[in-house]
Order: sequence, then structure tokens, then C-alpha cells
Amino acid sequence: MANIDRESSTARVAADIETLSGRDYTLTSDAIRRYAYTDVYRRTLDYFQGKLEELGFDVSYDPVGTLVARNRPPGEKVFGIGSHCDSNRNGGPYDGTLGVVAALEIVRLDAEHGTNLPLQLISFLEEEGSGFGQMLLGSRIMVQRVTEDDLREHFRAIDDGRSFWDHAADAGCEPERWQDSARVLDDLTGWIETHIEQARVLQDTGNRLGVVNAIAGYVHADISVDGRADHAGATPMDFRLDPGVVAAACIGELEQLALAAGKGTVGTVGEIDFSPGIINVVPGQARFSLDIRGPDEDAFNGVARDIVSFAQAAAESRGLQAAYELRQTVPATRMDPTIVAALERAAGTAGEPFRTMPSGAAHDTMCVADRVPSAMVFVPCKDGISHAPDELADPADGALAAEVMFNAIRELVG
Amino acid sequence: MANIDRESSTARVAADIETLSGRDYTLTSDAIRRYAYTDVYRRTLDYFQGKLEELGFDVSYDPVGTLVARNRPPGEKVFGIGSHCDSNRNGGPYDGTLGVVAALEIVRLDAEHGTNLPLQLISFLEEEGSGFGQMLLGSRIMVQRVTEDDLREHFRAIDDGRSFWDHAADAGCEPERWQDSARVLDDLTGWIETHIEQARVLQDTGNRLGVVNAIAGYVHADISVDGRADHAGATPMDFRLDPGVVAAACIGELEQLALAAGKGTVGTVGEIDFSPGIINVVPGQARFSLDIRGPDEDAFNGVARDIVSFAQAAAESRGLQAAYELRQTVPATRMDPTIVAALERAAGTAGEPFRTMPSGAAHDTMCVADRVPSAMVFVPCKDGISHAPDELADPADGALAAEVMFNAIRELVG
Repeated sequence: MANIDRESSTARVAADIETLSGRDYTLTSDAIRRYAYTDVYRRTLDYFQGKLEELGFDVSYDPVGTLVARNRPPGEKVFGIGSHCDSNRNGGPYDGTLGVVAALEIVRLDAEHGTNLPLQLISFLEEEGSGFGQMLLGSRIMVQRVTEDDLREHFRAIDDGRSFWDHAADAGCEPERWQDSARVLDDLTGWIETHIEQARVLQDTGNRLGVVNAIAGYVHADISVDGRADHAGATPMDFRLDPGVVAAACIGELEQLALAAGKGTVGTVGEIDFSPGIINVVPGQARFSLDIRGPDEDAFNGVARDIVSFAQAAAESRGLQAAYELRQTVPATRMDPTIVAALERAAGTAGEPFRTMPSGAAHDTMCVADRVPSAMVFVPCKDGISHAPDELADPADGALAAEVMFNAIRELVG
Repeated sequence: MANIDRESSTARVAADIETLSGRDYTLTSDAIRRYAYTDVYRRTLDYFQGKLEELGFDVSYDPVGTLVARNRPPGEKVFGIGSHCDSNRNGGPYDGTLGVVAALEIVRLDAEHGTNLPLQLISFLEEEGSGFGQMLLGSRIMVQRVTEDDLREHFRAIDDGRSFWDHAADAGCEPERWQDSARVLDDLTGWIETHIEQARVLQDTGNRLGVVNAIAGYVHADISVDGRADHAGATPMDFRLDPGVVAAACIGELEQLALAAGKGTVGTVGEIDFSPGIINVVPGQARFSLDIRGPDEDAFNGVARDIVSFAQAAAESRGLQAAYELRQTVPATRMDPTIVAALERAAGTAGEPFRTMPSGAAHDTMCVADRVPSAMVFVPCKDGISHAPDELADPADGALAAEVMFNAIRELVG
């Protein structure tokens, strides 16, 4: 293992973040706001391109504008590192950007230590969806999880309603070659993305790094319970068909089911409506959302099935009806055990507290993992706050992530 | 007991309701909409005044416009009957009006049978609050449950924002004499109001009349539970401070507490909000309303106390905080046992199914009962629907209410 000067590494990571938090790199001074094909996004890519070219990397762009930087010619095997440097519209300095900065730092460590690892850095386009309302857009294009119709017609700019296709063409990209984006992944032997955790597990457990062994899949759905609206004063308890009581029972049951399922399964009711929603009227309908996730496919799908059965039985036992409507489901993504093990070893060697854990949130790595053995490293963020201007992480943790990745990749490609 | 021609009585009640559902008596053809000091309300009072004067009654108005009709000179004892003939803004033909019609029908039965009972009919002003947003306004004025400031300043027309005082004066009333309204109750030996039930207990139990033995008091309040908003995917179950789960437990508990309290106690959560209210965010705050009522003061107040204790304990056991905020509380109103018993006897003699029951909704009788031994009679309405254009009741049940009240009053004043 290289003897890394952590103080210098931390200073470089801090300087990158500080620069990219400046007024030239965000559309508003109130937050970080940058997304595809804006001047501030272009300047952000230019910043990374300049640094990478200084370090001897060839920088190019895929047909829609995802940055790709390599130190080996096409056709030679390389190890992939990176993240995204767009932000959500009211974002902070660390979400995504810290991952690209950590990847840049790995390139610097590689130069500093003369290791000349075969590397390819990727900064994905439009992870947050701030430009076109489509999350993971660049990485979905890369693994062909979109259609040409989507790009030409359906995906439209939040700002002006014009198509993704037209915006990409105006920015000098070649959207008609979008399928060639897949070639970016051709030479990768592995992939690691650093990202802030966006939750508080690392902070609350006193860990400085997370080694991600799976990205949660999820079910997003709604349950509606139909009852009968009645006068709250004039309707005795045993004359009611109150869907609110059924909804309430489901909320309690979902917590129990998620706890019983274990394996990192979580279940959340984030939205609830009683209709008509008046203090003195027994609700006629109750609707609540389900967000059920986990790294274990069987576990979280089992919770989803069980809560629907519970809702229907609870409704029927009172003469009500419950209906389930799926919004979206995404399978869990297993991280590559070999890369995870290498990261755990490198983290252990670094001598700082770390935790192997699933990611509850979605990341570009979910797409990359379709074709390339992949893993992720998490860095704590203060109180779990993200997607907000007061998002905060420690550059020293970002530097530690770069160190651990650097050493893991050395082992993996050695 | 008089041998009453029910078919003729029903026809008269039906004709009154049909007339007063006509276009001259409502501000909109989509619903019944009439309230104080409008032309359509004036015409409604004129209709009753004409009928009552034909029957030999003296008709006058209290200082704010409540109709008072008597067949005895002031100072002589009379028995009070009536209700209100204003509607809510999207109302039906029966709420209130059927009670004034039933009172008119009693006057007609009294004439038909030559019984010459000492009667005073009252049609209260602004029970619904459609004019000035103040429920039970006429009867509250009568029992001095308002202040002069309220009438001069605080109570303002929904339509034009001008004060109740100015509107009353413009309509030819004498608001400066409002305290004299109390004298309307001076000669009353008792009071009975007929009203549609506004719930479905009578329909669902196959009863044609309800004899009301108490009007529920209530607690209207809110409970807020403060937790911590977290990412629904990235926050393990045991790292959460989810106030939604506490709110859900309270909803289930409230139902159990109300059932356990018995004595007609009911508890309802009609409003609920999770904040921020996003499918993939663990709520940071949950707020829900409480409507807890019943005819038994100790029972419903006990449920209110117990649900607050439960919420606070449930919150604290999870490291959250629950706060209770009272909106309004109104005590229960006992009906007069002598009048209730007379109504039960008369209903039994009528040979039609009836049920002695509390009223869950508020009525002018709550105010009258401050000074006069009072009771009420309920008539079923289809599916409990009220305050809506499709409100429906059977005129035969209205006529039956008049018959039962007529016979009960004969016994009481005999």
C-alpha cells in the first residue's frame, strides 16, 4: 500500500469542492443548481477536463455529453471510476460532485505514486433529472434503458419544454448516435463510484466510510381504501365504514413487516390523504403511499405482497375495499463481491472505521452494474441532509474514499 | 289521543316542502341556499307567517329577525315548537325546514282537532351560519351567548364583509335591542324541535322516528407529532423517528377508546397530514384532528384525555414529541326526562318503530335547553345524506313527528 499524504489529498479535494461551489458553477447563489447543457454545467466539465488533461488523460464525450477520460487507448482494459457532477435544482456541493472529485483525486494519487493504473473516469450526464425530469438519464442511455422516441419526443426540458434531442444537438452533441454511448463501458474491468451517503447511518454509527454491497430495489405504490363518509358526531362507532382506521392499521403493520423481514428492508408511508378531510366527517376514502425497499429482492417484495394482503383483509373484515396500485418497481442491484472484498480490505488497511452496507438510494452504478462488476463507497454527510443547500461532508472523508479506492483498484488490477 | 288522518297530514307536509324547494325560495337552482336577510329567506318566513296567521296565530319577530308565532297573549304560558328554515349554502330541502313545517303541521292538527293547545312556534335565524359563518346564531343571541362586539364588529357577512349589525338594521330589524331576544323564551314551559337525523342510524335500524335524549358535547382538537424527515430508502428502520407511525397508532387507539367508553361516545380522525408528504421521505411531522363526542360528559372527555396520554407516551417511547391543541369544546346537553318520556309514550301509541337516541350534531335546542325543558324528535334521512342537494326525507315521517309531538304536548300541558 502506498504511503498517502492524507493532508495534501484532503486539501486538493477541499479545493475542488470549494471551486465548484463558486458562482461560476451554479445557476443560483442560493444553492448548487447545475444541469445538462447549461453554461455552468459546461464550465464544471471544463474544470475536470482541464485537470485530467494536465494529468495526461485523454478526455472525450459520449454522444450525449457524458465525460469520459482515460489513460489507455481504446480497446485496452481499464478500471472505471466516477459519478456525476450535475445537481438537483436546490442542491448542495457534494451530491455527485464529490464522487467525480474523488475519482480525479485517484488519478492524482496514481500520478503521485507513479502507479500508472489503467483508469477510465466517467462523469455521467443528468443523474438528478434537473434538466429533463429524468433521473439517471446519462447512465440509462449508456445501457440502452431508454428508447429513441424518449429522447426525441418524450423527454423534454423542464425550463422550456423542448426535447432532450434538440437540446443535445444545440450543445454540439450527436444524439442520433446515442446508442454508441454503450461503447463507453466496453473496456471496463470494474467500476467504483464514490457518493455521499444521503442518510445518517455512517454519522450515527461513527463510521467514516461505507462499502456498498448492494443498491436497494424498491416498490413504489399506493393503497386506497374505500369506505363511507359519515357525520362524525351523528354516526355511532358500530355504524361506520371508516377507511382511515384501516390505513392506520396498515402503517403500523408495514413497520412490523419491514422489521421482521430484516436484511436491510425498509417500508415507509410518506404520503397520506383522508377524503373529504374535514374534522367532523368520517373519511370516505383514505389513500397512502408505499415505499418499500431493500437490497434483498425476496425480502422487500415479500413485504410489498404482505402489506397488500393485510390491507385487503383489514378492509374486508370491516366491509370496506382496499385497492393496490403500483407506480414503479426497480430490482435490487448486487455489487460485485470481489470488488466489495477489495474495498473492505483497503478500508481495513486505512485504519479508519467503516461499515459494509446497502445503498437505499438509486445511483448511476445501478446501470453500470448491468455490464460491469461494480461497487460503491459512501462518505458520511452531516445529519443525512442532501438535496439541500446545507448539504455538508468532510473533504477528509472524500480523500479517504479516494485512498481506499486507489488501493483497492491497485489490488484488483495488480 | 286524537284520531289523526295521516294521509292528509303527510300531503300537507309534502306540499310545504315542495313549495319551499321551489325557485322563489333558494338563491340557486342547484341546491337549497337561503340565509338571513336575503329575499328568498324573507319569502320563506312570509310563507310560514301567512299560514300561521290563517290559523289564528300572532306572528312577530325578535330584534334580529327570528320568527315567533303564538296563540296566547304575552305572559301566558305556551309550549315551544319549531326549528330553523335557513339552509347551508349547498343544502337540501329538509335540514331545518322540515322542523318548522312539522311545527306548522302541529298548529294545523291543533286547529283540526279543536284542542287549542297553548303554542309558540319559533323559526330561528341563521342556524347554519351561511350568512355570517356563525352557527346557531339566532339561538345563541337568544340565550346571550354572543357579545355586542360580536354582532357589531366580528360577525361579518360571507358575501360582502359588512357586519351582522348593519345587515340586520338594513333588513328592518333592531339589532340595538338584541338582548330583548331573550324574552322569546320567557313564557315557554317546554320545547321540542323536529329535525332530520343527518345520519343513517334510523334508516339502518328500521326506525321511523328518533326521540332525542341528549345532544352530544364535543372536543375538537389537533395532535401534532414531531419526528425527523429522512430518506425513505437510505434510513434503516431502527434509525427512524417516524411520526406517521405514532399518528397511525393513535387512530387505532382512538377507535378502541371510543368503543370502550360506550354511552354513545364517538371518536373520529377526519384530517391527517404528513409533512413533507413525499413518497420517498420519512415524514418529519404528522398532524391529525380529533373529533370526540358524546352525550355523556365524563365519557367523551375521558376519551379525549386518554388519547392525548396515549399519543404522548407513544411518541416518547420512540424519542418523538406529541403536542395537543384544543380548537373548541362544547358540553353535552341533557334533554328533559319528562318531555322525553312523553314523546316515547306518544311514539309508542303511534305504533310505528322508534328509537331513543342521542343527537351527535348540534342544534338550536342546545341553546333553548339553557332556559327551557327541551327535547327533540329525529326523522330519518336517506343514507344519512344532509347538507347536500340530494338530501331526502319522507314527508310521512315528518307528519308522524308532528303527530307524536302533538300528542306528547297534549299530555304535557293537559
